[in-house]
Amino acid sequence: SLQERLDGLHPADIAFILEALPLDDRRFVWDLVKAERDGEILIEVSDAIRESLIEAMDPAELRAAAQSLDADELADLVPDLPAQVIEDVFQSLDVTEREQLRAAMSYPQDSVGALMNFDLVSVREDVSLEAVLRYLRRFDALPDHTDALYVVDREAHLKGLLSLEALLINDPDHSVGEVMTRDGVISFEPQDDAGEAAQAFERYDLISAPVVDGQGRVVGRLTVDDVVDFIREESQAELLARAGLREGEDMFASVWDSVRNRWSWLAVNLVTAFVASRVIGLFEGSIEKLVALATLMPIVAGIGGNSGNQTITMIVRASATGQVTPEAFMRLLRKELGVASINGVLWGGLLGLLAWLLYGNVSLGLVMTAAMILNLLLAATAGVAIPMLRIRLGADPALGGSVMITALTDSGGFFIFLGLATLLLL
Amino acid sequence: SLQERLDGLHPADIAFILEALPLDDRRFVWDLVKAERDGEILIEVSDAIRESLIEAMDPAELRAAAQSLDADELADLVPDLPAQVIEDVFQSLDVTEREQLRAAMSYPQDSVGALMNFDLVSVREDVSLEAVLRYLRRFDALPDHTDALYVVDREAHLKGLLSLEALLINDPDHSVGEVMTRDGVISFEPQDDAGEAAQAFERYDLISAPVVDGQGRVVGRLTVDDVVDFIREESQAELLARAGLREGEDMFASVWDSVRNRWSWLAVNLVTAFVASRVIGLFEGSIEKLVALATLMPIVAGIGGNSGNQTITMIVRASATGQVTPEAFMRLLRKELGVASINGVLWGGLLGLLAWLLYGNVSLGLVMTAAMILNLLLAATAGVAIPMLRIRLGADPALGGSVMITALTDSGGFFIFLGLATLLLL
Ligand SMILES: [Mg+2]
Ligand SMILES: [Mg+2]
Ligand SMILES: [Mg+2]
Ligand SMILES: [Mg+2]
Ligand SMILES: [Mg+2]
Ligand SMILES: [Mg+2]
Ligand SMILES: [Mg+2]
Ligand SMILES: [Mg+2]
Ligand SMILES: [Mg+2]
Ligand SMILES: [Mg+2]
Ligand SMILES: [Mg+2]
Ligand SMILES: [Mg+2]
Ligand SMILES: [Mg+2]
Repeated sequence: SLQERLDGLHPADIAFILEALPLDDRRFVWDLVKAERDGEILIEVSDAIRESLIEAMDPAELRAAAQSLDADELADLVPDLPAQVIEDVFQSLDVTEREQLRAAMSYPQDSVGALMNFDLVSVREDVSLEAVLRYLRRFDALPDHTDALYVVDREAHLKGLLSLEALLINDPDHSVGEVMTRDGVISFEPQDDAGEAAQAFERYDLISAPVVDGQGRVVGRLTVDDVVDFIREESQAELLARAGLREGEDMFASVWDSVRNRWSWLAVNLVTAFVASRVIGLFEGSIEKLVALATLMPIVAGIGGNSGNQTITMIVRASATGQVTPEAFMRLLRKELGVASINGVLWGGLLGLLAWLLYGNVSLGLVMTAAMILNLLLAATAGVAIPMLRIRLGADPALGGSVMITALTDSGGFFIFLGLATLLLL
Repeated sequence: SLQERLDGLHPADIAFILEALPLDDRRFVWDLVKAERDGEILIEVSDAIRESLIEAMDPAELRAAAQSLDADELADLVPDLPAQVIEDVFQSLDVTEREQLRAAMSYPQDSVGALMNFDLVSVREDVSLEAVLRYLRRFDALPDHTDALYVVDREAHLKGLLSLEALLINDPDHSVGEVMTRDGVISFEPQDDAGEAAQAFERYDLISAPVVDGQGRVVGRLTVDDVVDFIREESQAELLARAGLREGEDMFASVWDSVRNRWSWLAVNLVTAFVASRVIGLFEGSIEKLVALATLMPIVAGIGGNSGNQTITMIVRASATGQVTPEAFMRLLRKELGVASINGVLWGGLLGLLAWLLYGNVSLGLVMTAAMILNLLLAATAGVAIPMLRIRLGADPALGGSVMITALTDSGGFFIFLGLATLLLL
């Protein structure tokens, strides 16, 4: 039966199925899921879907689900739980777990502290590997993603790592201190930026890394599975943000939820489109005299936008990996202006020719070519300057850049083309 | 000195520094890097930068660098090496390595086979854990990211996994067969899609997974570090593709390289912009009579494009995770049409009002509102239909969708607005 098949599935697979189902079917399947699995599945589903599942649960079910989770997972769930459930769950935790939950919830969303867990095995430096092997045999399971044991002193200060590899390839008579890694151990602090930690995981191919406090005491552990989830979420958020979507949508959520998720970006674009329209309004007299201007002007604006978006994407991408320093500004600007000049002469020349052929007006063709070149130069300048300014101001260079550059190249393109035409043709 | 500092750095850090340096400085630093590290660094740098480094090396250096690599790494480097170097390196390999190199190079770029490596430890099911522990003590190192040993029979058929955890927590008197994982072992075949393997790594939080041939014999191993690199590259490629960049650029490469990387998308956009311009051309008579049409038309086209891009981004994202089935088409279309109607009435109404106030022409305002609604409905339909059609045709739903929808909403927006105005106002 469906129930049995669900019982055999990994929680991540059930989460996936729930996300792909329309609301009614989703609630039906959710009711079939065994109560003791609710917690682990709530952790796996995306935010938008989690809300719809929690709405279908009563306080007792939510309490049971929450109590099945580790403190770090609970911290992720808390923002979606009703206050009374949170209170009850908190009361049911022991002192250590309460402390862990408080700690996990105290760090901002994109920090190492929000991503870390509290499952780890630590050992002392003066014991033999033999003793460590005997100690591990008393475990029923090791924490997920254990690739190393953390070597600590009596006050939990991190002294080094005993990788499982070192534990396994060395003679058990050795002491931990003789075979452990002391130098170059990569560790993080809870307030560190999660993005930078993720970059370290990528660069140094880490599986897990200790998290230490200001005094170097081990307080938690970061593991590659959570880092992978973070990387995926970050890149999804970037893709969504570029299209002006605040967050991922539950595809089966209501029309109103979607309207709310999308309206602010449309409003911004409406304002920029209105401004561009008023720029055209300045030249209505010219357009009345030479209606071809109205026909040709969107080409100048559009190609400028496309080219500017190429520049800004390239620079934002390179700056995200830390490769663009403000010092590189002039060099990059020169290069982008070079690319824009070539494209301007090439494509602008071609379109000038077409305009000439279509309207039998050489001057119109020349104005078209000149406007294309100037708008591409504007696009290149803005494409370099906008992310650079944002980096210098300490802001995220990726945010809103596309809207800004399109606004500039639209208004700018109309102004340059219609202005040149008014000056030179009429 | 700089040389000493470089010697102390991780190859991934040196790769990062090389990528951030202009060409001259890059070559200077590259000459300072010890020859025996050249290979591992060439593997770490991005494609665009690798070319510039290889250009600076003579055949003997390239040969030495290539010979320091494993077969799977070598396979990644081969496409960039001169034929004579490849031939020399191939001759220097032993039979197993040649076979591995041939295998690694025989699989398409986005397959598991292209991502896998050949470093793994396998054990037999009938030996005791004690024997496995003694066996591992003969190793100087375990393969990177070893979280499990592969249990195989005499012909290398995969029988299960012995996780290091099971090896460590169980009594050494047990046999491998007693504690190994037999069921639910996730393995891949070399021709499997790397993206799907990456999804499995994310979902099931894997560190490594065996790769088996059609007969179930172990031929290699996939590890999370390479999966993470794959995920990052995929998401970067998607971001770049959305802005029409064929590949990541070396920011310090020549202007011509950049022009080549960007021209094809600009050309496509030029064609679509030209088509839109010809649509306007159809209505030049109407614009001459009512020049306000020229001023207002870019708003209708622009907002349609923005809204359509929101729809297509949302659907492409959901379909990338496998959540959009062709069966969901009608349901999604209904929903997006609902969102478009609300936005159309809201924003279209607002702009109609503005048009009325600006030009004192009620009918013009009504035409504006109607055109906005219709173009948003067109955008919603295309935003659902384009990715759905691509899925049904087996194509990548993400590719070129933004260009297509913008082309449609530009030409369509101009046609709807100017057409309605011609019918109703003139
Ligand atoms: Mg249930
Ligand atoms: Mg856990
Ligand atoms: Mg957390
Ligand atoms: Mg035990
Ligand atoms: Mg890596
Ligand atoms: Mg985890
Ligand atoms: Mg060198
Ligand atoms: Mg290797
Ligand atoms: Mg490879
Ligand atoms: Mg040894
Ligand atoms: Mg996962
Ligand atoms: Mg590797
Ligand atoms: Mg546009």
